[in-house]
Amino acid sequence: MSHTDAPVGVGIIGFGTVGQGTYTILRDNAPTIARQVGVPVEPRMVADIRAAELAGRVGPGVQLVSDARQVLESPDVQIVCELIGGVGVAAEIVRQALTAGKHVVTANKELLARQGPELLRLAEENGCDFYFEASVGGGIPIISPLRVGLAGNRVERILGIVNGTTNYILTAMASGGGDLPSVLREAQELGYAEADPTNDVEGFDARYKLTILASLGFQARVQVEQILCEGITRLVPQDIEYARELGYGVKLLAIARRIDGRIEARVHPTLVPFSHPIASVAGVNNAIYVTGNAVGDTMFFGPGAGGLAAGSAVVGDIIEIARNIRAGSCGRLRCPEFRDLPVLPADDITARYYVRMRVKDAPGVLAAIASEFGAEGVSIAAVIQKDSHEGVAEIIFLTHGVREKSLRDALEKIERLPVVEQVCAFIRVEE
Amino acid sequence: MSHTDAPVGVGIIGFGTVGQGTYTILRDNAPTIARQVGVPVEPRMVADIRAAELAGRVGPGVQLVSDARQVLESPDVQIVCELIGGVGVAAEIVRQALTAGKHVVTANKELLARQGPELLRLAEENGCDFYFEASVGGGIPIISPLRVGLAGNRVERILGIVNGTTNYILTAMASGGGDLPSVLREAQELGYAEADPTNDVEGFDARYKLTILASLGFQARVQVEQILCEGITRLVPQDIEYARELGYGVKLLAIARRIDGRIEARVHPTLVPFSHPIASVAGVNNAIYVTGNAVGDTMFFGPGAGGLAAGSAVVGDIIEIARNIRAGSCGRLRCPEFRDLPVLPADDITARYYVRMRVKDAPGVLAAIASEFGAEGVSIAAVIQKDSHEGVAEIIFLTHGVREKSLRDALEKIERLPVVEQVCAFIRVEE
Repeated sequence: MSHTDAPVGVGIIGFGTVGQGTYTILRDNAPTIARQVGVPVEPRMVADIRAAELAGRVGPGVQLVSDARQVLESPDVQIVCELIGGVGVAAEIVRQALTAGKHVVTANKELLARQGPELLRLAEENGCDFYFEASVGGGIPIISPLRVGLAGNRVERILGIVNGTTNYILTAMASGGGDLPSVLREAQELGYAEADPTNDVEGFDARYKLTILASLGFQARVQVEQILCEGITRLVPQDIEYARELGYGVKLLAIARRIDGRIEARVHPTLVPFSHPIASVAGVNNAIYVTGNAVGDTMFFGPGAGGLAAGSAVVGDIIEIARNIRAGSCGRLRCPEFRDLPVLPADDITARYYVRMRVKDAPGVLAAIASEFGAEGVSIAAVIQKDSHEGVAEIIFLTHGVREKSLRDALEKIERLPVVEQVCAFIRVEE
Repeated sequence: MSHTDAPVGVGIIGFGTVGQGTYTILRDNAPTIARQVGVPVEPRMVADIRAAELAGRVGPGVQLVSDARQVLESPDVQIVCELIGGVGVAAEIVRQALTAGKHVVTANKELLARQGPELLRLAEENGCDFYFEASVGGGIPIISPLRVGLAGNRVERILGIVNGTTNYILTAMASGGGDLPSVLREAQELGYAEADPTNDVEGFDARYKLTILASLGFQARVQVEQILCEGITRLVPQDIEYARELGYGVKLLAIARRIDGRIEARVHPTLVPFSHPIASVAGVNNAIYVTGNAVGDTMFFGPGAGGLAAGSAVVGDIIEIARNIRAGSCGRLRCPEFRDLPVLPADDITARYYVRMRVKDAPGVLAAIASEFGAEGVSIAAVIQKDSHEGVAEIIFLTHGVREKSLRDALEKIERLPVVEQVCAFIRVEE
C-alpha cells in the first residue's frame, strides 16, 4: 500500500446553499475530519460565477475565482466538488475534472440519473473516485449503505419519501394548510420550494433519485423515462381528507421493486396506512426503506434538504476519497456492473386504488358503477358515499389489488355512464 | 494501485446462527456479491467444535474442520470471520488471525467494547482490515455510516434501541403479555431470548453496543464500566401501564451525549413520549438515532437480531475487505484516534423522572412528600394518585428536569417519611 501524509486539497465549484454548507463543515469540523482521515482536509479554492459578490464569504487561505477551469487546473486541488446542478455546465465540468485526474464529489441527482453509468466508467478509466452520496436523501447516508453495508443482499424493494419540498407541502396540506397553490406559496416564502417548483411538484426530482437508487440497488441500468412519474399537482385537500377518514395518509412515494427478473419503478402520490411509520414522516424529512433478501426491512431517515445536511453527505464523500488518496487506493469502489433488466410497463402495475368520482344522486347509480368495475375484474374493498349537494354526490372507492390497465379500462367506461359526472381522482395505495 | 483478479477466500469460525446466516448469504447471493466486488467471494472453510454434527451443512467445496487454527493457517483463506462471541477463545483467535496477516470480520460486541482500540491498532500494525458492522444493530448499517457517511459531523448524540430481546419483551409486556418472567419464558421458547438471558435483561449487551457507538461517534476511548447500566429486571407491568396513561412508552434505551467536552453515557429503561417514532419500534427491531452538528437528526432502523440479518452485516464487511484486497488497499480505514474524554458521573445526569411510591392514604401525605422534593430542588410536573386499597395508595410523580443526585437525595428522605411505605420505582424520561 502506497501512503502519503500530505494534507488533501478540496475545490468547491458552485457556492450556493450546498457549496456554502460544505465549506462551513470543512472549516468548522476540521479537527474531527482530520482525526478521521489522518491528515488535514483543506478547502483551497471556491469557484462561482458570482465570485465578486461572495468576497468575504471564504477564509484568507481560500482562493475565490469566477472560472471553474482554474479549479480544474490547480495542482493544489485533488478533490473537486461539483455543486452547480443540472446537466449542462455541470456535466462538462465533471467530465473535464475526471479527465484531468481529479476526484469528483457531486450532489447532482439529474446528472447521476442521466449520465451516472458513463461518468462512473470515465472515473474508473482515469483511476479517479466519483462519489455522490448527497444526490439522494440530503444528509442521510443511503448511497453508501447500498454499496457497502447492504451490498451482500439481493435488494428486493426500495420505497421512500425522497423529495423534501413535496413532503413539506403534503404535511402542510394534511394539517389544514389549504390547497396546493397556497401551501406552495408559503413553502416558497420559507425557502422550502424554489421559485420554479416544477422539478419538485411534478415528481421529476424524486424520479431522478429513484433512478439512482434502483440502478445501484438492482445493479441495473434504469432510464429516467422508464419510470412512471406523477407529481402532486392534481392533489386536492378533499382527497387527503377522505384518505384520512379511510385510515391513510398521502405521501409522494418513490417505489422500485424486483418482480420476476423485471423492475417495477414509479413515483406518485400514494395512500399509506397511518399504521406504517412512513405516514408520519413530516416536513422536509426523507425516509427510505430498503428491503434485502438477507437483511429484511431496513430504513434510513433524516433531513432531505438544507445546505448543512447535503454538505454533511458531500463531506462524508470527501473524507472517503481523502482516505483513498492516503492509501493510494483511489478507484477501489469500481464502477458497478449495470445490467439491462426490463422495466414493467405502467399498464402491468398491480396495486390497490383510491378512486373518487362525482355522480348523480339517484337510485341504481352504485349498481351501474359496480357492474362496470366487476366486468373488468376490479374488486371493491370499500365504498363511501358523501352527502349530496344539488343532486350530485361524491363516491369514494377503495379497490382490492388489481392490474392498472384493468382499472383504467373500467374507469373509462364508468366515465361514459350517463349517471357519472366525472372521475375526479385515482390514487395508488401501498400497504 | 496494485490490483488482483483472484477470487477471495473466506473462513468462518463459529457455525451458530450468525455463522450459518453468513454462509447462506455467501452461497445464495454469490452472483450479486461477485458483481459488487468484481471477483467471486468464496466460503472455503468452516470451523466449529461441533464439526462432526454439522457435516452436510456446507457445500462440497467447503472444508469443515473442528480446529480454528486450520483456518488461520490456510493459505486459501484471506478473510476470517470470528462468529463465536465472548472475550475468551474469540479474542485469542482474532489476535492470532491479525498477527498471521488475515483480515478479520466479527459480530462480537463484547470483544469490540472491551478490546476494540487494541485490536484496531493490532490490525493497523499488521496491514490488515478489522471490520465489525454486525456488532451493533444486527443487519442495520450503523458502524459504516458513523465512519463514512456521517464522518464529517461532530456527533452530538447517539440514542437508540440496540437490544432486540429486551425490545421484544417490552413490546409484549406493553400489549398485555404479562410480567417479565412469563414474557421472558415465551421469548425463550420462540428463540428470541437465550437460556441465560442475563446479558440482555441486565442491559449488558446494550452497554457493549453503546460503548462501541460512543467510542466511534465521539472518537473517544469509552470504557464499558463507565456507562451507567440498568436492565429491565425491575420493570413491572404496572409501571408500563401508568406510563401509558401519562402518554409514554417504556423502552430500554442506550443514550450517549457530548456535554461541554464530557460524555454522558447510559443504558436504562426509559419513558419516551408516544409522539416520538422510537416509541413505536416493536419486537426485535432496533432503531438508532445519530445527531450530528451538520446533518441534524438521522435514524437507522432494521432487524436487530437473526442469523440472516447479522449475516448481511458480516457479508457487507467481507465485500469491503474483498474490494480492499483487489485494490491493494487493506488497512485504508485506519485505526481511529481515540481521545480520553471524561465521562459524566451518574450523579451529574440531568433528566426528568417518573417515580412511583406506595403511601398511607391520609391527609397531608402529598404535602409532606412535595415538601421533601422541594427541599432538594425537584420540581414536579405531574402527580397522579391511584385508588387506595386497605389504606395504602399509589402515587406517581413526573418531575421536571433535575440532577439525578438531587432526585436520589430527595427519594432517600421521602422513603424515611412515616407516611411513605415504599418508593417502588424511578424511571428516567427522555423527551
